[in-house]
Amino acid sequence: MIESLKVIPLGGLGEIGKNMLALEYHDDIIVIDAGVLFPEEGMLGVDFVIPDISYLLERAHMVRGIVITHGHEDHIGALPYVLRDLPVPVYAPRLAAGLIEVKLKEHRRSLGVDRDFVKPVDPGIPLNFGQFSVEWFRVCHSIPDAMGLAINTPLGLVIHTGDFKIDYTPVDGNPTDLNKLADLSKDGVLLLLSDSTYAEVPGYTKSEKVVGDALERVIATAEGRVMIASFASLISRMQVVIDAAQANGRRVAFVGRSMVDNVNMALKMGYISDPARVITTIKEVGNLPANEVIIMTTGSQGEPTSALVRIANDEHREVSIMSGDTVVISATPIPGNETLVSKTIDNLFRKGAQVLYDKIATVHVHGHASQEELKLILNLTSPRYFVPVHGQHRHLKSHAHLANDLGTPHQNIFVLEDGDVLEISHNGASVVGHVPSGPIYLDGRRIWGLENTVLDERRALSRDGFVVVNITIEKGGATVLSTPEIVSMGFIDIDENDELMNEARILILDIFNESQNETDFVDNIVTKIKEVVGGFLRKETGRRPVIIPMVVEV
Amino acid sequence: MIESLKVIPLGGLGEIGKNMLALEYHDDIIVIDAGVLFPEEGMLGVDFVIPDISYLLERAHMVRGIVITHGHEDHIGALPYVLRDLPVPVYAPRLAAGLIEVKLKEHRRSLGVDRDFVKPVDPGIPLNFGQFSVEWFRVCHSIPDAMGLAINTPLGLVIHTGDFKIDYTPVDGNPTDLNKLADLSKDGVLLLLSDSTYAEVPGYTKSEKVVGDALERVIATAEGRVMIASFASLISRMQVVIDAAQANGRRVAFVGRSMVDNVNMALKMGYISDPARVITTIKEVGNLPANEVIIMTTGSQGEPTSALVRIANDEHREVSIMSGDTVVISATPIPGNETLVSKTIDNLFRKGAQVLYDKIATVHVHGHASQEELKLILNLTSPRYFVPVHGQHRHLKSHAHLANDLGTPHQNIFVLEDGDVLEISHNGASVVGHVPSGPIYLDGRRIWGLENTVLDERRALSRDGFVVVNITIEKGGATVLSTPEIVSMGFIDIDENDELMNEARILILDIFNESQNETDFVDNIVTKIKEVVGGFLRKETGRRPVIIPMVVEV
Repeated sequence: MIESLKVIPLGGLGEIGKNMLALEYHDDIIVIDAGVLFPEEGMLGVDFVIPDISYLLERAHMVRGIVITHGHEDHIGALPYVLRDLPVPVYAPRLAAGLIEVKLKEHRRSLGVDRDFVKPVDPGIPLNFGQFSVEWFRVCHSIPDAMGLAINTPLGLVIHTGDFKIDYTPVDGNPTDLNKLADLSKDGVLLLLSDSTYAEVPGYTKSEKVVGDALERVIATAEGRVMIASFASLISRMQVVIDAAQANGRRVAFVGRSMVDNVNMALKMGYISDPARVITTIKEVGNLPANEVIIMTTGSQGEPTSALVRIANDEHREVSIMSGDTVVISATPIPGNETLVSKTIDNLFRKGAQVLYDKIATVHVHGHASQEELKLILNLTSPRYFVPVHGQHRHLKSHAHLANDLGTPHQNIFVLEDGDVLEISHNGASVVGHVPSGPIYLDGRRIWGLENTVLDERRALSRDGFVVVNITIEKGGATVLSTPEIVSMGFIDIDENDELMNEARILILDIFNESQNETDFVDNIVTKIKEVVGGFLRKETGRRPVIIPMVVEV
Repeated sequence: MIESLKVIPLGGLGEIGKNMLALEYHDDIIVIDAGVLFPEEGMLGVDFVIPDISYLLERAHMVRGIVITHGHEDHIGALPYVLRDLPVPVYAPRLAAGLIEVKLKEHRRSLGVDRDFVKPVDPGIPLNFGQFSVEWFRVCHSIPDAMGLAINTPLGLVIHTGDFKIDYTPVDGNPTDLNKLADLSKDGVLLLLSDSTYAEVPGYTKSEKVVGDALERVIATAEGRVMIASFASLISRMQVVIDAAQANGRRVAFVGRSMVDNVNMALKMGYISDPARVITTIKEVGNLPANEVIIMTTGSQGEPTSALVRIANDEHREVSIMSGDTVVISATPIPGNETLVSKTIDNLFRKGAQVLYDKIATVHVHGHASQEELKLILNLTSPRYFVPVHGQHRHLKSHAHLANDLGTPHQNIFVLEDGDVLEISHNGASVVGHVPSGPIYLDGRRIWGLENTVLDERRALSRDGFVVVNITIEKGGATVLSTPEIVSMGFIDIDENDELMNEARILILDIFNESQNETDFVDNIVTKIKEVVGGFLRKETGRRPVIIPMVVEV
């Protein structure tokens, strides 16, 4: 038998989100990360998307554990659902472990998943998972305690960078551990899996320190309150704000449930420090003069139910915009959110706030490596095989291109899609198959695989609505027992279009009379109503509502 | 009576699109531009949005004409609809006039609007509209023959910049006519209306020449076919491509109906020249070697039915991607289109094309002035009053800020919203009222004002679908005549959820039995079915479909 290592990305390739990758050697599998994807436009009504784990479920007895790189939603968000079906231990850096516990607690009742699954890990201490041995090493990202993985396999070392950038001056004082990476790589790297999110961007990503300096300047010079919107998981940004508050005699209140929860957890675990006790409650800041107040909120993506958006729309219970407020959107819109963010900024301006955002001030840097940093990692590790991960297809292609420029031959670089099975053996590497990796949609309180037809139906309904046509007839089909009833939504204002509806009713009765003596009578009128009424309404209105005939026989 | 000039923006303020502004003096009104807005996310099923012209319709006898600045859709797209209800002459620069005629011809049959309405104008020749006199002057924009307006009114000169940038090396050799503007302004400018689209961007906008150079390099070095996607209205970009084709021994085929129409019109009118006859048909390029082919298409915004997207999805009748193709997306995604564009790029990469786009190459520049250019215009005109136009609210605010920096006092700057009525007299200026300006949605072949409730209904349907519950009862309410029928779409796969539906049916019968003896019997069961069945399905599925009870009495 040939010794082989299988590399199976189950999510995160060809998309930003729902990261998950399995490594398989004989009868051992380890899973790296288990994230969610936030729904894109067109995924109507979907709450979020998780990876398809049917491949793992079929081999549940082989899965030795899930190893987590860091605590962002696109890496841990699917855990409650994955653990429900696949109850295996989860090993995560301490902060991520804390965030996962918060998450599991939330879902405990509905999913029955206990937080005892979670084991915190520290960098530098290898753990065994069957024939795999995993050692975490520090990388810098937009959340503290982010790590890469050095995975020893019988075939050689696999390095997974996790999400990273090379920030020499990070807020938490823990830069990417390049010495460790060099040391780990000294005996050769079989396979490098590296973050591709910003592989199309030349140069270096800016340090979080740049944002710190900018926010500090804003806070130091603002005359009124300062409101800062960011991601609930951007723990480093919170520390920056706390430090700036302290330096400028201000106090900080956090708004938005997820942000408050995360601050509390991070304080308790020591990932945020507040030596001067500047953190206070939103109630308390009401009693302070405007120039002593900072409010930090969620909503940097214009999410309709977030604190910032409710504030911008004057719908927040505790906070409203006052003239003289400075609002900082300390984030960049995730592709797809631009319109929402732009509307929020406009509304804040309308309410009289001064608004600072990425286009006009350096109030955000992202957490992913640009090309020069990616090259450094490729250079330090000099991998035999390279698989770019974490990115849309073009990011992966871009990253592959960089690796090739740095000397990895074409045939050793694999731009994979979710579900591809890459097999590496002493004889070489190749894609040997494909496993289920279709997205699983979550919609509602229970876990549902949302059927594609349901999504298609929602799309059709969202365009021109529907018209239900009810006709009640005597069993056997001799007589119509009531005027056809028409119910419609999303099509036109029926009340203002009486005449149109009456004409439709006459058409329906005509169909009934014409079809009465035909065989397959009911089926026939259903088909004819669709055709005739649909055609009539299309001609009259130019719209194509879904026509649903409902023939009731009594 | 006080002599006063009314300035009434009817579209384009607080949004990018549907530009329209009315100037009114005594019983004369002129209208500047009549554009469409392409629907945003959330405007489900809407084809496009036009300005509300009810204010103009009420004063139709006063409207002396519509004056057009240039031929982009957001400035001329609403004309077919506006002219149907308000048949007044339209004065437009020659290329815009050509584009409008093409447009009116398309709609002639459905709207009955004749193209005789359109009068081409040249710069430098003032035309009278009642007490207004309008002179067009050249500005540079991403379409040839773009112009600003110098409007003489009894109260003083109004300058409207149109959409512009200050490109000293434009493709058509017609830079913004700064001398003319200086000359026009020498006796003082009462009011400046100036393009705010890029008012938040520091510095200067790059020249179209930069794109020309980049495209020329791409075309000169590509080994296979070159495919260039852009806007159908970007006439200058077409000339750039034709010139580069000629220089590199290639031929150009245009794909996409609107692009082909516009090329033909522009060739006929002399806005594009093809001395070496490099333009050919898509059929012909099939017979040429790959390195002699350029294909220029629509679809730079990822529009689902556009040529490029069909090509990327392998659904185009005449063109498919070959390995070795270079595809250039010569445009920037309009906010809201990022996801569509990104998907298209990914699909082109998957098919084996090399793709160049704004993030990785200078293959597009936009057509609007940045801050330094805006300052130049403010400086040349030194207006007494300033109204920033063409932009989202924050762009207008940003532009107002610039004007203030350059010396226009706060109280003379008006950041207006659509529908605001600004009145200027010898005594000063102030907002004196607000006229209807709500968006008019077009949806379908006929013109409809889409009621907001219909949009709300479509949103509700797009989230969790609907469930129609039919119960047929004897008149008077004594007996149920058939098992309740349930029809649903966009909710769950009913066929796979028989049991759930059966439970719902039992609930409905229970409601009937319990309510039978109540007064307002039918109303009561309608309300109860909504509550009980809605609550039941929510509890079971976590989803909240729209519940529509339909009680038929026979």
